Amino acid sequence: MEDGEIKETSRSCAMFGGEGPSSYAMNSSPQRGFLEAAQEIMKMSIVENLETEKLSSATYRIADFGCSCGHNAILAIQTILEAVRHKIQLEGCELPEFQVFFNDLVGNDFNTFFALLPPQRQYYASGVPGTFHGRLFPEKSLHFAYSSCALNWLSKVPELVTDKASPAWNNGKIYHLGAHKEVAEAYGAKFCKDMESFLNARSEELVEGGLMAIIMPGLPDAVPLSQTDTALLFQLLESCIIGVAKQGLASMEKVDTFNLPVHFPSAGELEKVVKRQGKYSIETLEVLSNPNELTKASLQQAPSNLRAVFDRIISSHFGNEFSKKLFDEYSKRIADPSFLSISHLCQLSVFLLVLKRINHCKR
Amino acid sequence: MEDGEIKETSRSCAMFGGEGPSSYAMNSSPQRGFLEAAQEIMKMSIVENLETEKLSSATYRIADFGCSCGHNAILAIQTILEAVRHKIQLEGCELPEFQVFFNDLVGNDFNTFFALLPPQRQYYASGVPGTFHGRLFPEKSLHFAYSSCALNWLSKVPELVTDKASPAWNNGKIYHLGAHKEVAEAYGAKFCKDMESFLNARSEELVEGGLMAIIMPGLPDAVPLSQTDTALLFQLLESCIIGVAKQGLASMEKVDTFNLPVHFPSAGELEKVVKRQGKYSIETLEVLSNPNELTKASLQQAPSNLRAVFDRIISSHFGNEFSKKLFDEYSKRIADPSFLSISHLCQLSVFLLVLKRINHCKR
Repeated sequence: MEDGEIKETSRSCAMFGGEGPSSYAMNSSPQRGFLEAAQEIMKMSIVENLETEKLSSATYRIADFGCSCGHNAILAIQTILEAVRHKIQLEGCELPEFQVFFNDLVGNDFNTFFALLPPQRQYYASGVPGTFHGRLFPEKSLHFAYSSCALNWLSKVPELVTDKASPAWNNGKIYHLGAHKEVAEAYGAKFCKDMESFLNARSEELVEGGLMAIIMPGLPDAVPLSQTDTALLFQLLESCIIGVAKQGLASMEKVDTFNLPVHFPSAGELEKVVKRQGKYSIETLEVLSNPNELTKASLQQAPSNLRAVFDRIISSHFGNEFSKKLFDEYSKRIADPSFLSISHLCQLSVFLLVLKRINHCKR
Repeated sequence: MEDGEIKETSRSCAMFGGEGPSSYAMNSSPQRGFLEAAQEIMKMSIVENLETEKLSSATYRIADFGCSCGHNAILAIQTILEAVRHKIQLEGCELPEFQVFFNDLVGNDFNTFFALLPPQRQYYASGVPGTFHGRLFPEKSLHFAYSSCALNWLSKVPELVTDKASPAWNNGKIYHLGAHKEVAEAYGAKFCKDMESFLNARSEELVEGGLMAIIMPGLPDAVPLSQTDTALLFQLLESCIIGVAKQGLASMEKVDTFNLPVHFPSAGELEKVVKRQGKYSIETLEVLSNPNELTKASLQQAPSNLRAVFDRIISSHFGNEFSKKLFDEYSKRIADPSFLSISHLCQLSVFLLVLKRINHCKR
């Protein structure tokens, strides 16, 4: 709010709202899997790193950045709360009151999310609309920042990727898979820039000694994205988009200007950006195995999961009819017995990163 | 949250959402009128009563209780913010950051409301779902509580009014107009109880010296509700509900069990409940004239305004088809040239109440 202004990014990156069969709320089991994989270590890291002597305030404030609309955010907050309460009780301190802020883009379905909140919750809940690449909270007002499967989303597609004059122009493709190396580099650079904005904003909002936990899918050591099952799913999506476009539902120019604004970093990339930003110490960086294995059975769920995540971004670029056709086509192609040959494919890993806001005095 | 539990009331009291022709957002000009009537005196009262020396925190927190979904809440917050900033600057103090919480029932359309928030706002915004008859915020975490046209809503219809065995049983009617005196008494008692819950919860949430501003329509001195134009509009609503029911769309039992959960207090009633609760000093209690005069021209707008406010409660009791028929009928009847004979009718007044949370030490 430095310039008295809070900017909002596009609403189209929000997940599919409501609780219907296509909703994120009903199709977020992979994200649930990431949380479950990281849950126990996250709890231990919180208990180890929480500085109870710094809890000067009677209220402990937790924010979930990119909560989306579903049960995962509620489970995550419950997990964090349990760990924080446990540590505070271990040290014999008085329990504070808890206030939890659920943040996502303005286009997120907060109405449905609010209705999902458990009535028996032991915290005061708020929804905070806006992009987490900028400030969302007053200075030093948060004790814990959490984000899961949200920082993989770029604030927007890297500019160079849709610039015809750039070597990173990604014509005829929707992602950097199988593209010139400049395309992947543009994605990597944008990710680092976005992560830095996120870390900057949170470093102003967090109290000194405040904790941050980030869960996200990322690349296993020394494995390029092209060797993962995610690549297989994305390449099928690309092929279907081109196919549906060629049926006359979109021009090739429309395809050229569409790119998925997501990135899966390596652990090294993540570590580098945190260290360069300089306001946090890395307390935990775990690379965990991904419980969401791509099998013949789980493939049936893949189109719904992908749709819950990408439908709005695809619809807003190509139109609703295109998106519907696309996911019909996708379901058909993925059901083809010849599709899956995963013997040589890896899965993305699950990264758990626990950071601590560095104490000013100690620096 | 004393018992670790936050209860939600029914969602049906929320205003009509969205931004369509029937929405509250598009049909809240009477409520805007109340705010405009009270605005200047509210600002003066804030400047007079704000205790800047108590602003120990770097963040000034304001909550709007019953924000609904429209532009009025945004204008009100802007007004409060200006007054607070003005006072702080007058005293040469450093400006804090501002965090604003917009509260309403879980059924409120927060999605639309969030999209209406001005991108250039000078505060951090949150939505808080839940009933304001209970706790919604941590202890001593708010500096300013505001509520406009929301405390007229009862948490529910007084129990006695739908109890066949009670002298307050309100059969064949939807409100206490023209009913036994016991019905009006039951409404008055429920209002006082609800106001007390509201004041209790806020007295825990507000810091000492924190301010509260309440705007609501109420009865002018020594004028019974039956002599106001609101009575005329409510009686027409009752007549239409009975008419539509008799067309076979609802049983008379259904009519008997329906009552409007609203109350318009007198200034004396309001003063009494605040004094009895005992945690606030009354800094301002103004009875202002209502700018929303009922004229032949404004009557055209009356059905839409009434519908934006009551549609959900009527639909949830009688069904959507009933409500649609009802408001069609209402529009027809109100357009009848013989309808309006307002020469002897008063308008409701606009009450502005500014309270200060009493300092514990002084008591």
